[in-house]
Amino acid sequence: MSRGRFITLEGGEGVGKSTQAKALAEALRQRGLDVLVTREPGGSEGAERIRELLLAGADERWGTRAETLLFAAARADHVQKTIAPALESGRWVICDRFTDSSLAYQGGAGGLGIETVRAINVAAVADFFPERTLVLTLDEGGERARARDSGESDRIGGRSDDYHRKVDAAFRIIAAEEPERVQLVDACGAAEQVTQRLLDAIADLLP
Amino acid sequence: MSRGRFITLEGGEGVGKSTQAKALAEALRQRGLDVLVTREPGGSEGAERIRELLLAGADERWGTRAETLLFAAARADHVQKTIAPALESGRWVICDRFTDSSLAYQGGAGGLGIETVRAINVAAVADFFPERTLVLTLDEGGERARARDSGESDRIGGRSDDYHRKVDAAFRIIAAEEPERVQLVDACGAAEQVTQRLLDAIADLLP
Repeated sequence: MSRGRFITLEGGEGVGKSTQAKALAEALRQRGLDVLVTREPGGSEGAERIRELLLAGADERWGTRAETLLFAAARADHVQKTIAPALESGRWVICDRFTDSSLAYQGGAGGLGIETVRAINVAAVADFFPERTLVLTLDEGGERARARDSGESDRIGGRSDDYHRKVDAAFRIIAAEEPERVQLVDACGAAEQVTQRLLDAIADLLP
Repeated sequence: MSRGRFITLEGGEGVGKSTQAKALAEALRQRGLDVLVTREPGGSEGAERIRELLLAGADERWGTRAETLLFAAARADHVQKTIAPALESGRWVICDRFTDSSLAYQGGAGGLGIETVRAINVAAVADFFPERTLVLTLDEGGERARARDSGESDRIGGRSDDYHRKVDAAFRIIAAEEPERVQLVDACGAAEQVTQRLLDAIADLLP
């Protein structure tokens, strides 16, 4: 049996990734595919334990290096226990956040550098890098609306506007570096329109 | 103020590292030095939380990649919160296990490879690598006695004899690769004799 396809959704806080992950999975299921939707940090028993350490507490609880390594440890467990078995049994996997969130948040905005974070993540996931990564983006007006709407915030979501602007900039750098794998997708408009844009961006992978 | 010296003690299970760390610190204090003794995994609040995840539960709880990254995350926190501030205030630090345990256990015995584990640990500790690493070793007769004496065993200590033989072999490889930094020290005989051998192995660092 051939391996399933591995697609990740990325982007800043509140751009609608989890809603779109479910909608994209449903659209793929209507095409007869068996799809697993999962999300990070978490997605396996061990990774969920690490998630608690990462998202609770004060911002200064972990420095950027420890934070990056904790995300990578959770990711290694998520890959080993959940993602790899699904792909190897032929299922498609859609993951809400993955390696590129670490590159953008800890590497770009956190200052550790995209290359250092990439090296750590290569060790974490081995040959389970995503085949296609869709970065949901909003223009500046959308960003302001998003900021007004955002009620909840965890240890990382609650960081400064400046930090989150650097995250968005880092996602654009990553997309420019790897245009085949990483595509920017406009997250404005009705949910159905955004889902259609996501489908268009993986059209070449569909059976 | 100049930075203090950073010395690590390494070796397999039950060779007397924690006893010798305290004895070496006491010998250095008698020479007028201010010494901090610490140990891994742990040594800071966050790292102790990660320690619980690492040492409890069944062996298959974590794969080698997740295990390596969790140790590195704990180490990054330990360095940031405990070791770096001590060294920067001029104190000497003696640490019971550090980066070389990861190289020997997960890199050598665990099969991830010494170079992959080294790259992760460079990202974890940045410029806080130990200046001198003393690996306590026992000959084969001593190893057998150690195995008989060993009552307790955590998630990692409880692994097979074959695993622990590979750990010992990896420590010898690391010592051969970095003879200036890493020295093998015979752990046989009375505790006072072993402490004197450790002092001899850092004689060039003493004021």
